[in-house]
Order: sequence, then C-alpha cells, then structure tokens
Amino acid sequence: MKAEIIAVGTEILLGEIVNTNATYLSQVLTELGFDLYHQQVVGDNEARLLSSIDEASSRADLVVLCGGLGPTEDDLTKQTVAKYVDSELMYDEVALKHVTDYFVYSDRPMTENNKQQALTIKGATTIQNPAGLACGLLIEKEKTHFLLLPGPPREMKKMVEVGVLSLLSQLLPNKTKLVSRYLRFMGIGESLLVTELSELIEAQTNPTIAPYAKSNEVMLRIAAKCEKESEGYALLDSIEEKIKVKVGEYFYGYGENLTIEETVISLLSEKNKTLAIIETTTGGLCQSRLSKVVDSAKVFAGGRVLYSDEAICSYLETEDKRVYTEETTRLLAQKIKEEMKTTYGLCVMVVDESHATSYFPKGTILLSLVVGDKTYFDKMIINRDFEYVKDGAVKHSLNYLRKLVIKK
Amino acid sequence: MKAEIIAVGTEILLGEIVNTNATYLSQVLTELGFDLYHQQVVGDNEARLLSSIDEASSRADLVVLCGGLGPTEDDLTKQTVAKYVDSELMYDEVALKHVTDYFVYSDRPMTENNKQQALTIKGATTIQNPAGLACGLLIEKEKTHFLLLPGPPREMKKMVEVGVLSLLSQLLPNKTKLVSRYLRFMGIGESLLVTELSELIEAQTNPTIAPYAKSNEVMLRIAAKCEKESEGYALLDSIEEKIKVKVGEYFYGYGENLTIEETVISLLSEKNKTLAIIETTTGGLCQSRLSKVVDSAKVFAGGRVLYSDEAICSYLETEDKRVYTEETTRLLAQKIKEEMKTTYGLCVMVVDESHATSYFPKGTILLSLVVGDKTYFDKMIINRDFEYVKDGAVKHSLNYLRKLVIKK
Repeated sequence: MKAEIIAVGTEILLGEIVNTNATYLSQVLTELGFDLYHQQVVGDNEARLLSSIDEASSRADLVVLCGGLGPTEDDLTKQTVAKYVDSELMYDEVALKHVTDYFVYSDRPMTENNKQQALTIKGATTIQNPAGLACGLLIEKEKTHFLLLPGPPREMKKMVEVGVLSLLSQLLPNKTKLVSRYLRFMGIGESLLVTELSELIEAQTNPTIAPYAKSNEVMLRIAAKCEKESEGYALLDSIEEKIKVKVGEYFYGYGENLTIEETVISLLSEKNKTLAIIETTTGGLCQSRLSKVVDSAKVFAGGRVLYSDEAICSYLETEDKRVYTEETTRLLAQKIKEEMKTTYGLCVMVVDESHATSYFPKGTILLSLVVGDKTYFDKMIINRDFEYVKDGAVKHSLNYLRKLVIKK
Repeated sequence: MKAEIIAVGTEILLGEIVNTNATYLSQVLTELGFDLYHQQVVGDNEARLLSSIDEASSRADLVVLCGGLGPTEDDLTKQTVAKYVDSELMYDEVALKHVTDYFVYSDRPMTENNKQQALTIKGATTIQNPAGLACGLLIEKEKTHFLLLPGPPREMKKMVEVGVLSLLSQLLPNKTKLVSRYLRFMGIGESLLVTELSELIEAQTNPTIAPYAKSNEVMLRIAAKCEKESEGYALLDSIEEKIKVKVGEYFYGYGENLTIEETVISLLSEKNKTLAIIETTTGGLCQSRLSKVVDSAKVFAGGRVLYSDEAICSYLETEDKRVYTEETTRLLAQKIKEEMKTTYGLCVMVVDESHATSYFPKGTILLSLVVGDKTYFDKMIINRDFEYVKDGAVKHSLNYLRKLVIKK
C-alpha cells in the first residue's frame, strides 16, 4: 500500500521550521509496512492545497496531511479536504467539549475561532487530540484514505501513538510481521560497539542489527521478520544473547525511549532507597530529568543548584575559591546527603571554560557519590560542545549510581 | 519568480534523515526574493523523478534539485534532468581534474564510477564543488531553470554560498528584497492575539503579519518586501507600532530564537541584581534553563529543588503536609533569597495530580517573588499535559519577574 505525506504550512515552505513531522511520519509509515515514493510541502492556500491533494491521491492509497488544523484563518486543511471528498464540515461533540472545557478550566475567554479546532468532516472517523485542542480525522474517498493530523510535533506524535497506529494497521492487508527490540548501552562509543559486534553485524540477515548513536549513549535495534510473533521474539532472544556476550557490560536497559534516569528511579524504588543531588554548572539538568520520571518523588527528594562560585563557597563556608576539585565534590555530596536525609548523595560538576585548569581541562566531569560513610569519586573528560558535555555528565553520573546500587 | 525545491533521496522518504536541505534552501530562496509554493521529496527512481520534475516545471520558473549527484548507481539526477531537457551528459574538464586530483592527493585508487561526479549537461553552466567532488549545474529549458545541487548539506551550503547566490540573483528581475522581524508575546494565546489584531491581519498586503504558536507563548513574524532595506525597515516599524497599540502589554522581546530566560538574565545584568530560585514539581527546569544562558552565573546564584513533600516540610521545619499553598510559596521564596543572599528570590510550584485540591486543581501554577521586604504572589491555571504546564510555569514566573524588575 502506498502512502504520501503532505506537510501543510507556509512556515515550512519559507524554511522557518524544519519539516521533522515528515521525518517522523515516514519512519512510522515505513515501519507499519507502507511504501513511500513522494512527499510534498504546500503553503496555507486552498487552490494549491487542492492541487497537491489531487496529485497525491493519484499516486497513493493513503494521503497523510499534517498541519493547518488550528484556529486561525490560514488553517485550511479540513475545509479543503472536505471540499475534495465532496463532504461538509461538522462539529465533533467530544472534541467541542474538549475545547470548551479547556477554556472553562483555565478560566480564559474562548474566542469563536477556537471552535474550528473541533470541526470534523461528515463521514470521517474523528481522532481526538490527547495533547492539544485540534482534533484529527481519517476519511475515505474512492479507496484513497485521507489522514489529517495537527502540525505541532508534540501533538502530532501523541495523536499518532494513541489514536492513529491502530487505525492505520487496519488499512493494511495481512502481512509478514516485524518484531523489534531496542537495547541501550552506556560507556562505549558507537564505532567501538560496531567493531565489537562486527562478526554478528556482517552475518545478519534475519534478525537484523542496527546501531544508533544517541547523545552520550548507543542504542541497538534488533528486528526480526516472522509469521508468528513468538517466533520473532525467539529470534530476538537468541541474537540478544550473542550481543551481550560481547558488550553486555555496557548494557543498561531496553526500549526506544528508555532513559538512564528512569532506570535509576525504578532501581531505587525497588530497593527502597532515596537520593539527593547537588549540581553546579549543569544548573539543575540532572534534577529536572529525574523529576520527569513518573512517581520519582518517592525516591528522589530534590537537591541544590550552586551555580555561581560564591554560592558554592558560601554553602561550604569556605573562602577558598578553587571550587572545581575532587575534595569539593566529595564535601558537596556528603553535605547534600545529610541535609536531605537520603540514602545516597550525588554531586555532579562539569568544568567549563572559566574553571579550566591544566589538571582539570574544560569538559572534565567530576562526580562524587556518598552512601553510608563511604564516598566514591570518579572523573572523565568529554571533548565536545558544552551542552553535550552536560548531558554526558548527567548520564554518566546516574549510570555510576546505577552500577553501585546494583552491587549493594 | 516562483521556485520549487525537489529533494532527491530515498533516505529522506524513509525518514532516515531529516530534510534540512529544503529548510536551508527555502530560507535562501525566500531571502533572495523567490516565491515558494510547493516542495517535493522523491526517491532515487527515474520515472518518479521525471514526473516530479514535470510537475514542478509546470508551476515554477526555477526548479532546484538537491541530491543524487554522487558516484553510485542510485544517483540519477543528472541523467534524468538531461533527458527532461533533451540534452546529453558530458564531462566538465575542470570538475574532472578536481576529481582525479583528489584521488592522486589522497593516494587512493580512483574507481571508474567516481568520474560520474564530473558530469555536466551540454548547454549548462557547471558549478564547481568547493567542499566535495560532485559538481552542480544550472540549465534552462523553455524559460524554466533547473539548478542541480549535491545532497550532503555541507557541500550543498558551501556551493550555494560560493557559486550559486550570484547566479540566482541574475535570474531575478529587479531585485525585491524581503526584510523581516520577530516579535514575542507572553500571557496571551494565539487565537486571542489574532482576534485582537484581526483588522491589521485582514488588511495586510505589505508588510505581512504571520502568527506562530510556540509553547506557552506566541511569536509574530512581520515581513516587508522592498527595493531598499531602509524602506523595508520603515514599513516594519510602522506595523510594529500598530501591533503594539493592540497587544503591546504582552510583548517581551525581539528575535526568532529569543527566550524569556535570556531576557531576564540580561535585564538583571543591566540592573546589577541577583536571583535565586526554589522549585518543587518543576524539578530544576527553571534553574537549568537560566543556567544555559551565557554568563548567567553573574546574576543567577542557583537555588534548590524540593521535589518530595518531605523535603519541603523539612526545609520549612513544619509538620504540616499541605505544602501546595500560597503561604508555602511565600515562605520558600523568602527563605531561598535569604539563604542565597540575592536581590530576588523566586518560588515556582506546579500542582500535579497528587497535590490537586478543589481550590488548587491540577495544572495550577503558584509563584512567589521576594524583593527587599516585599513578597508578591500570583497564580494561574494551564489545562494541558504536565510537561507543557511545567514549561508554562517556568516561562510565566520569569515573565512575572521581568515585569517587576522593569517597574523597579
């Protein structure tokens, strides 16, 4: 079955935003088994949009239109598709309630144009928006299906995950199944991982192994084609075992979206231990990531950000301004653990340009971990831009903690 | 003059890479004064590429094809365009020397297929590649111009800068310029902003006004076509003034990439004031954003994250577990200001599911700001997913601070 994506929006045409929606949707559609041969971008203009829809319909069984569902005058996608399929617009009651409730709840006035976002097309399956106001829809005309999705990437992705995947699977005929699994590794670079696994990778047919370099970690996707899912999973188990023989020491968990912070929070919950963090140049990055994990408040108490050197000195009650030292990280970790009354105290520091010395050059990560009366220290250097180093500092510190918690 | 971009490459269609080339080229073409109404992506397939070229030629005066100039079998762009314009391929001597020299210099054997990269089309203007091997070209057929560029972004951009810009300017009649400006607003939704500005928006011809909904804020792009830049800026000044009469109270700054945290840091630096933050459910998000701003350590000292209720109670030395109250935010803001010895102390709290009451439902933002012996309090509700609410809490708190700092 052929699919074609039309991204609708003048801001993409003018190069003001990158068309990441098309990238995401291409991946999803390919993964589901659709064939993709063309993609289009068109501005917020009815005549041109109609011509793009017509063009796509002549080539594809599924036309995915992304964008132009909002409340403003230049949001034309629903009207235009309605015209193309010879139907008319009508309010979806659930979506309309969702929009009005939103404004009542927020105690903000609802302008009339907001109701537009609850419009659907007569004869369509409405798809509710789990992360925003504009509903999507799926409608068929002469064997071509039209799927309308909102433009903001966050809303679009959420809608695809929650409401669209199952609808699209129903459109596809029976087929070979594809099962896949993601393995995550930290402490090893992509090229070394690939070198370690070279024999397995060269010999691959089914299952396949694909490495993805992520920020400060590597992910492997293993995928197997099969008739029955159970056969596929058996193939995955077998290749996973072989992979772990080679690089198992760097493996930390499963999942395309798994994070080291989730891994740490669930490990601490399981062991009934608590954690406090103290950070300097990372400015709260570690704490904000931990706090994003669902139910993390049970084990993550919070902590401190000491961003200026004055704040560090004042906290340690010292006049010594050389704060980026092993000694400082040990003291900070101990003090935050005491102050927050937690099992673990973790201090993360990154040496930035202004604190660089010949001993600790820019990009050095210093970390200390306190548990009971023991204080552990580790350091490493990442030679990349500072945002990347900060990300690495957070991930490596949490991975260090993970390994220690497992050992205990 | 109309231009249309065709990105050629199966890897874009399948979502393996993001089509940033189209974004870059759109910006360049728009800035030069071309009108863009459509964009396409097509795979490495002759028949489909021919049909895309035909489609684009019917709509545009300039068709820019990006990708498919390399040495492998699936690089088909030059052959296909040659066929479309009824011409033939031939070697460009300069490009051929460039390719062979490259292999001599690197002391590597040159395979025969590498010579393909030096092919041009008879009748075309060849464009040398300053950052790679495959040459580009510009050719005209029946008043439509075809520009062929390499796919690797680094090579493509370099070629555009060095060889393409001047060629394209020559295609344009008298050069209309486009100047633009971005205005940022907080505290007003996109639909209300558009309603307030409806008269201006409906009457727009030149300059144009385009609203963009961003996370918890709205951006307006105003753009003017002009002969001289000074005339364009005068048009922008005049429309900006009219916009500000209507919604000026929500305006906080200029720039496509400006953030409220940058605005706050530069304002505090200017006034020589310092800031400490205390957060609960936002888990350090506010502090990590402030710390990303260059040189923020001069005014931003740091602060605390009290993520669990126990941590809040322990910090305030109270047994009362009802921590999500106005009183608590006031106390926290006062205490962090004292502790960190700063001019301002800001407390940001967001009521999550587990702390929701009938008085403060889920999504309520509570904020307190202390300066001198005065403590200010504000609250608002955002009815969206929690990540969005947290983003809003950070932005609105910083905007609240901004307004107070300006007043002082």
